Formats: sequence, C-alpha cells, structure tokens
Amino acid sequence: MGHAMKDVHAMAPTRGHLQLRSVGLSGIRKPLSIRRPDRVNVLAATIDLAVDLPADRKGSDLSRNAEILAEIVDRTILQPADSLESACSSIARELLARHAYATEATVKAEAEYFLRRGISSDRQSFEDYLLRAEARAFRSDDQSAQLHRSIGAEAVGMTACPCAMETAREKLEAEFPLLADPRLKGLPMISHNQRNRTRLMFDFTGEGDVEVDEIIDAIEAAQSSPTFAILKRGDEGQVVMDAHRNPKFVEDVIRDLMASLPGRFPHVPDTVVVRAATVSEESIHKYNVEASHTTTMGELRRSGHT
Amino acid sequence: MGHAMKDVHAMAPTRGHLQLRSVGLSGIRKPLSIRRPDRVNVLAATIDLAVDLPADRKGSDLSRNAEILAEIVDRTILQPADSLESACSSIARELLARHAYATEATVKAEAEYFLRRGISSDRQSFEDYLLRAEARAFRSDDQSAQLHRSIGAEAVGMTACPCAMETAREKLEAEFPLLADPRLKGLPMISHNQRNRTRLMFDFTGEGDVEVDEIIDAIEAAQSSPTFAILKRGDEGQVVMDAHRNPKFVEDVIRDLMASLPGRFPHVPDTVVVRAATVSEESIHKYNVEASHTTTMGELRRSGHT
Amino acid sequence: MGHAMKDVHAMAPTRGHLQLRSVGLSGIRKPLSIRRPDRVNVLAATIDLAVDLPADRKGSDLSRNAEILAEIVDRTILQPADSLESACSSIARELLARHAYATEATVKAEAEYFLRRGISSDRQSFEDYLLRAEARAFRSDDQSAQLHRSIGAEAVGMTACPCAMETAREKLEAEFPLLADPRLKGLPMISHNQRNRTRLMFDFTGEGDVEVDEIIDAIEAAQSSPTFAILKRGDEGQVVMDAHRNPKFVEDVIRDLMASLPGRFPHVPDTVVVRAATVSEESIHKYNVEASHTTTMGELRRSGHT
Amino acid sequence: MGHAMKDVHAMAPTRGHLQLRSVGLSGIRKPLSIRRPDRVNVLAATIDLAVDLPADRKGSDLSRNAEILAEIVDRTILQPADSLESACSSIARELLARHAYATEATVKAEAEYFLRRGISSDRQSFEDYLLRAEARAFRSDDQSAQLHRSIGAEAVGMTACPCAMETAREKLEAEFPLLADPRLKGLPMISHNQRNRTRLMFDFTGEGDVEVDEIIDAIEAAQSSPTFAILKRGDEGQVVMDAHRNPKFVEDVIRDLMASLPGRFPHVPDTVVVRAATVSEESIHKYNVEASHTTTMGELRRSGHT
Repeated sequence: MGHAMKDVHAMAPTRGHLQLRSVGLSGIRKPLSIRRPDRVNVLAATIDLAVDLPADRKGSDLSRNAEILAEIVDRTILQPADSLESACSSIARELLARHAYATEATVKAEAEYFLRRGISSDRQSFEDYLLRAEARAFRSDDQSAQLHRSIGAEAVGMTACPCAMETAREKLEAEFPLLADPRLKGLPMISHNQRNRTRLMFDFTGEGDVEVDEIIDAIEAAQSSPTFAILKRGDEGQVVMDAHRNPKFVEDVIRDLMASLPGRFPHVPDTVVVRAATVSEESIHKYNVEASHTTTMGELRRSGHT
Repeated sequence: MGHAMKDVHAMAPTRGHLQLRSVGLSGIRKPLSIRRPDRVNVLAATIDLAVDLPADRKGSDLSRNAEILAEIVDRTILQPADSLESACSSIARELLARHAYATEATVKAEAEYFLRRGISSDRQSFEDYLLRAEARAFRSDDQSAQLHRSIGAEAVGMTACPCAMETAREKLEAEFPLLADPRLKGLPMISHNQRNRTRLMFDFTGEGDVEVDEIIDAIEAAQSSPTFAILKRGDEGQVVMDAHRNPKFVEDVIRDLMASLPGRFPHVPDTVVVRAATVSEESIHKYNVEASHTTTMGELRRSGHT
Repeated sequence: MGHAMKDVHAMAPTRGHLQLRSVGLSGIRKPLSIRRPDRVNVLAATIDLAVDLPADRKGSDLSRNAEILAEIVDRTILQPADSLESACSSIARELLARHAYATEATVKAEAEYFLRRGISSDRQSFEDYLLRAEARAFRSDDQSAQLHRSIGAEAVGMTACPCAMETAREKLEAEFPLLADPRLKGLPMISHNQRNRTRLMFDFTGEGDVEVDEIIDAIEAAQSSPTFAILKRGDEGQVVMDAHRNPKFVEDVIRDLMASLPGRFPHVPDTVVVRAATVSEESIHKYNVEASHTTTMGELRRSGHT
Repeated sequence: MGHAMKDVHAMAPTRGHLQLRSVGLSGIRKPLSIRRPDRVNVLAATIDLAVDLPADRKGSDLSRNAEILAEIVDRTILQPADSLESACSSIARELLARHAYATEATVKAEAEYFLRRGISSDRQSFEDYLLRAEARAFRSDDQSAQLHRSIGAEAVGMTACPCAMETAREKLEAEFPLLADPRLKGLPMISHNQRNRTRLMFDFTGEGDVEVDEIIDAIEAAQSSPTFAILKRGDEGQVVMDAHRNPKFVEDVIRDLMASLPGRFPHVPDTVVVRAATVSEESIHKYNVEASHTTTMGELRRSGHT
C-alpha cells in the first residue's frame, strides 16, 4: 500500500477525555535468563506492564509493550539479567523511553524459583519458592527517568498454634496429672499445625539491593519450621518437634520476621519500606488466618530491633 | 426475512467425518432451587452439558442446550427440584429428547452447599461443602431413554499423621524417659496435621437414592476430625485432642470410609459403584498426599464390611 | 476446671513489639440473606475480616471474629440485610465494638449475583455477575465509630478491537475495491473480539448509596456489547453486529464508563471516589490487555461529564 | 537409638482391609532438565505419582516416592532426559522397583513449554504451551515391568464462529444489498471469535514416540488461527483475516485435528489411542463451548484420513 496505515491509537478519544492511570498487558509468560553466582537460571515469569495515557490520545499502542518485552527477554539469553528485579527495571525504563507521551511505566513480575534445601546435608533436593519484583519508572521534571524498585519472595512453611497448644495442655493435665512432673518440663504438647505462606517485599526508591535467597532465609526463620520435600521417617518427627517447640500465631510470624530484618539486612537504607504478609491455612478451620504489616527499615531500627 | 436462515450446524462437516463423543457447554453458572425438608435451598451450580454428534452433522446446535438449561432452572423456581442430581437427570433427559440425532447426553453439576454444624449445640454455624451430581441419558434400542446417575459430596476436615506421631514419640521418649510411665498411657503425642479434602460418589445405573447430608456425615467420620468455623479456645484444644487420638493416613481415610458404607447405606443396591478420593495438604511438605479407590457396594459387603 | 484458661492472646508478644496493621480471617464462605424489592436473595459470599493489633498484645483472639460473623449471618436469616455492603458495615462495627484494643476493623466481601437478563423480553435467563463490598470502621477521638464503605460489581461482556478493524479494512479494501462504494458506508468490518471483565467500585466516606443493578447497567453499557446465556441463531448475529458497530479498546471502556457516571448517578456526592478496572482476554494473544483509573465524582463532573 | 523405629506403614490396617487402587503424592513442583537438539531446556513440572497398595499393608511409605523423584530430577541435571515423558517413565519404573508390594505405578507430569514462534520470521518471540506426559508401569506375570506411556500438549489459539458469521451475513445483506455483488465474493464477514485451548494426547502401549513440537503444530493448524505475542498493526489485521477465512466450531477443531493425524504422524502405530479435547472461551457467552473425542490411529486410517 502506498499510504500509511491509519494510527487509531493516536486519534482523539471518542468520549471521556480522561488521562488514564494505567493501560497495559497482563499475564504474559516469558522465560527470563538470570545470572546466579554458579550458573544461569531460567525463570518462567508472569509479567504485567503498563503506562499511563494522556487525555488527548485514544489508545496506548500496546503492541509496542509486547515488542519491548520480547527484546529484553531475548537480550537476557545472550546476556543474563542480574535478577528478576533488574529485568523489570530495564523493561520499565524502555517502556518510558518508547512511549513518549507517558509519564510513568510500571512492570510487575513473579516467577517460581527453585533452591536446593534439606533438613540435613544428605537430604537436599529442590524446594519451590516464589519471587516477586516490581519496577516503576517515571519522568522527572528534567526528563530524566527515576526508578522505584521492589524485590521480594514468598515461602511456604509451617506454623503450630500456641493457643490450642495451651488449651490442649490444660485438658491433658486434667486427664494425666503426671504431666505436671518437673521431669516433663519442656515436653511439647499437641496443637494444630498447617501450611503457612509468608511474603516479604522491600521497596527501594534509590540505590540498594537485597539477595532473594536471604529474603527466603528470613521468612523460613520466622515460621514455626520450614518444610521439606524429602523427609525420612525420623526427619518427620524432627520437623514436628521443631515446629511444636516454636509455636507461632500469624501475628508472631510477622513480628518475628520484622524484628529480624535490621540484623539480617544491615546495608538496607532506613528509607526502604518493608511489607510482610502471612497466611496460615488453618487445619482446624475451613478458612485461613492472616496478618500483615508495612513499615520502614528506619522505623524498625528506631524501635530497637537489631 | 422471508427465507429461513441457513442452518450451518445441520450441514455436512467440511472435513473429518467422525462421530464425536462429546460436544457441549461448560462452566455455566445457574441458581437451582432445591427442596429440602424444611426449606427451599438455592444452589449456585456450575453445570457442564454435552451430547454426542453423528458423523454427517457439522455442529451440535449448542444454543438449544442453553435454552433447555434455562427452562429447567426457571421451572425449579416454581417447583423446586428434589436434589442437584434430579435436576441433572431432568436436563439430561430433555437434551436427549431435543437433540434427535444424539444417542447420549451427559450433565455434570457441582454446587457449594451450606449445612449448620458445630462442635456443640451452642456453637452451630454454617459449614461449606461441595455437592456433585452427574446424569447420563442414553437411547436404548427401543428408543426409550435410560439413565445413569451419580450423587456425591466433598468435605474438608483434618488428618493427623500416625507415622510422624510414632517417630516423634520415639524421639520424645529418649528425651523424657518418664513418658514410658504407665500413667501416661494414652497420652496423645504431637504430629503433623492438616486440611484434608475427601470426596465420595455413588454411581447408580438403576433405581435408588442417597441423601447428601449422610454422605457428608460418612466423610467427616472417616477423617481424623471434622473442622468448624466457630471454636472457642477450649474447643480448639478438643478438636486437636480428637484428631490426635484418631490419627489417619490418607490410606486410612479411604479404607475407613469404604468400610463404613454398608452400615451407613443399607438400602443402596450391590450394583452401585462407589468412588472415593482424598487429599491431605500436608503441613510438613509443600505438596499433597492422595489416595483413591473405586469398588461396588456388593464387593464391600462381600469383604465383610457391615 | 475451676481455674480460668490461660489467655495466650492477651499475653505480651515474645519478640518484635510492633503494632500490627491487620490481623484476621480470610476466605470464609457464608450464605447471606439480602432483601431485594421483590424477594430475598441468598448470596454465597467470600468474606475477609481483620482488625489492627496493639504492640503489647500477642494475639488477636480471632475466634471472636468467626463468632461475630456467624451471629450476623444468622441475623440476616430472620431479618435480611439491605445489601452486601450493609452486612459488611454491620460486621465491621461489631468487630470494633468487641475488639476493645483495636482502632480499625476491615471487612471485605465478594459474592456471585444472578440477574435475569436477555437480548429480548422472550430470551430472559440468569446471567451471573460479581458483587464486591468493603467496610472499614475506625475509632475516632471521641470513641464513636466512623465508617467508610465501598460498593461495586464486576460484569463480563465483550469488546471488539477498533484498531484491528481498521487494519483489516485496509487489507480488505485493497483486495475488494468495491468496499469503497458509498453504498457500503457503515458496513462493520471483521476484527478480533473477546471476553471483557470490567469492575466498578464506589468508595463512600459518608452517607450515600448506589444500587448494584445500576452499576452493572453502567458497566455493560461501556463494553462493546453485553453477553447472554441464551442466543438463538439470529440473536448471535445481532450481538456480533452490535459489538462490531461499537468497537472499544480497554481505554475506551474505562473512559466511556467514567464519562457515564455523572449522568447515571446524579445523587452520588462529589467526594465519592470511583475506581474502574477492565481486562480484555484478547483472542489474538495469549495474554490480556488491561486499563484502570481512579478519580472522584467531583472531578468527573468538573471535567464536563454529565 | 539402638533399636529400629517402628514401621507404621508396614503394619496391618486398623480397619477396612481393602487393596487400594492409588496412593501417592500430588502437586510436586520440580525442575527437569530435558535435552533438545540445540540446547538443554529446564521444564518446571507439576508431578503426581502413585502406586497401588495391598490389603494387608497400612501405608505406602510415601517418603520413598519423594526420594525417587528427587534422585531422578538430580540425575537429569547431569544427564538430561530425552523428554518429559521419558522422565515420567524412569520415575514409574523406579517406583515399581522400590515398592515391592505394588503391582502398578503411575506418574503424571505437566510443564509449561516455550517455543519461538511468530507471524513472520522477523516477529519471532516465545509463545507458551503446556506439555503433558503420563507413564504407568505394571508388573506382568513374569515380574518384568510393562510400561504404558502418554505424550501430549495443549495450545491456545483462536476460533471464529461459522454460524454467527452466516447469520451476521444474512442481516448485513438485508441492510447492504450490494454485498450480493459477485465482486465481493470471498469477503470475510464479522463473527464472534475467542481464545481456544486444544489438547492432544497419544497413548502408547508399546514402542513409538511423537515429537511435542509436531503435536503443537497439529493443534495450531486445526484452530482458526494460532495467536502470537508480537503483532504489529498490520499483522493484527492479517491474523483476523486468517481466522475469519477459516471459521471453526469446536466440532471442526476436533475433526480437523483428528483427520490430520494419519498424515502428520505416519510412524505412529495403529494401536495408539489418540485423545483430543478443545474449549472455546466464547466471546458472546459467559460460558465455554467444548468438544472431545477418543479413537485410535488405526481407526482414523481406516476411515480414510490420510
């Protein structure tokens, strides 16, 4: 065809001349090559990406988003990204560069992540976790791009309930008076226990980084016990004992996790926002129990957590 | 228009003259009015419905399926159905009647179902279960419609593991020798426990019926313990004690459920097939544990289960 | 037992003396009786409810939440609630009243909702929608409870793409020059079309109300076409024509929806925040396309939307 | 401890001495290294694995299953498997070897799979598909293990409806009589179109193999059009035209797919069972439309499909 195709996206909106906060693609699955110290990991990520849209423009030319994403995915094959979050940052910056009318670009990604873990050195196998990353690029007054980044992970572990443990103890002591014997001090009592999923996110507005394996370590340390794919019979008893000697409400999981952050992440600046959320899939109910909290590293340090 | 619309479905297939086993609609949500002894229940059901299709016909005129379903849904408003399964049977029969070319019609439905239950008479509230029903109508040689029907339910309860309980006991006895004292005989030991979902289906090729509330009773009796929405603190200890005094592998859940059927359902004929499946969402692993079995009521009776 | 049970929740936290933003239950399924002009509707709702927790308290006594919910669910059987949102408000107020230490209580509910709709008066049947409601009660300085409420709905309809329609037209005009004939002006051209899910929420900080059926009307009017369970063959052609004569980007869906609100909801105060989000499950891609916007009724009125 | 731990699994069942058809683990996520002609692919697979259980044995020692799986996963790191299906076969054989009491072992796996595809050679990017594999090992009378294997894939593409196209044409011809002009013969008419997911499985009881990329090719050729991540504006029009010139009912997708198999897979033996299922997420309805069929390669060849 001799003439250019009509650009429907660049036309004026038919009705409702509103600047729109977010227009984009969601649920895109892509393989991203990520460099790890000892190898290249390919993460199958679910990616959402969007920009804002001025009031005088009908559409956002979303095919451009798919192209940018494909280019950066392809680039990681030759030169792996440093992390899921750095891949998000590259995409966000490129979105802003190529959507000249946009003032903000947002990219969110989540990807399953396998780590070799085990209850002992001869019981190692792959455990699966979830990585999450976000990047938001926005145009500042001098037209340079600013970048906000979030890095986080989610881990499934186990909680045992401290309250049911106490009421079970009272009922059992009434039935077995010998339980009051000091020689049984420290005997763990039955309780309900269950899968617990806990997520921790760090929001950076400036420089800085956290290592996702350390985020996963922090989460697992805050649950009653981590869980493992391979447990020989004796190991099962060990995990059960560990969890019952470390009973936790969802409230405890969040507080213990938050309290551990200043000690575990001394290099993360005070301005960084930390967000934690936890869900216990209660074995004695058909519903879940949840807790969440958001604060800053500075606030945690000032409250005396070290 | 003066002329009839072209009936694309009745045309010959373009290619691939195969008789097709199943063509239909799936994932249709509809409210079905069901008569209960004391009230009318409206079940929000997910319904799939299909017929077979002869080799010489391009399409199955699926809009007819949607119409039949809507008619029967509307009919239950004025005259509630006896059960989810009887609604499926009506739909299957009507599908066969109105798809003259079909030899078989299949209808599957599942619906959430609330029952008032509680750990005691003053702790009653709604617990949610899942009902499942299927009906398959097929044309016999004399053109009369035959009907096969399935009735079942799924309940979430709790299992405590007998194996981890044993290994925890051995470890604790090594640490607390006093546990061997006969005065502590019967003391329940810690183990892992978790949500368990168990399903039971009855397949009828002839007359007969089962009451879904009794199916749910049978399932809950086969788990380590049912679970409840309302548990005051003392109650939590009670459920935990009940479950740990009744530890169950998924294998035990299926066997105990199957073994209970002849006693609980004496009127169900020998020819009826029973299918059971159970899943425990293990608290000490990130994966699930499953067991399933299929047999007949006659087989269960002959193996001496009463 | 003669002595009171130990209240583990009221104890001091073991570690991490943080005030927690949110502790609660999630994923509870309950049947809520709602009064409609002509009947009582039972909505099967998924409910989340939470309160905040002071730094000096270990746990939130979550069994109280389950009790409050059960009481209010039971109360609606005798006296149906006015709406999903009013049930949420009652629960939120009661949570705040009975968790003396809490400063804020949040309740979220979503429920499937059936409406009789059809392409014509003789094709009516049930279409399914999703209702959403939230209530947040918080203690003001004079200890009176303040209430923020959100009311909304989600509807599945259809979008046809205006851009692919234009490029298809250009290709077809090159192949069929007769398409340029003025007698074919207004002939709808082929495009990709797909399921679109659109949600609209109203956030009230004071008095006021909106009717969910009118929210659903507003959403369906902003899509290329609503969709229907029952469509006879001629009707299918009609819906296809309607959608292709009304092609919409996700951007258009949001803008047209927002633009329609001042006219459709004249009684909603200027301070009310409106949030809209839309997802098209693109038929020509494996991923989705999304748009969203948040503004106030006042802002919409000031931009000249009436 | 000096004494052996009690083996609870090997004990007799408490009740219900039934041989159980299936006891196992489900929903295990593992990374499997698969050898491709030009590279090693790591597939993140969801794996279920189970054995049967004799009547005199309480439990199935499921920790053994997790160990076997971990061993084979680790082995693929050093020596990648030939395919998802060959990994399943190795696991099934090993399950049978190490559960001496079992007569049958079943392994099912599904994994996302990325292929570089595009509407043209300069628009290539990763498209995501789903691989499925099953292996069933069973002990024959001479104690040698027999193996049944299934290999398949699922692809998302697009269907355009031939029936709505016809009724739209009739309506449009009434409005635009010029459409009857012979110069417009072959002009594609508007219809509804939507995402279609189609699955094809081959069940082998003996030797033989199929290449998953060829399964995906066969599926995409049977849909109205494949779909692509990257489509520039002109490309969108092209996909829309391709789909509307190739309109398909779900019935057509299954028949065309089945009809193509003898020609596409000449080396697959007559005894191999082929199973196909397709779902169109109809844009004009809130529900889906489905079709499925099962037959043998021999039957397809005898019906004259070549």
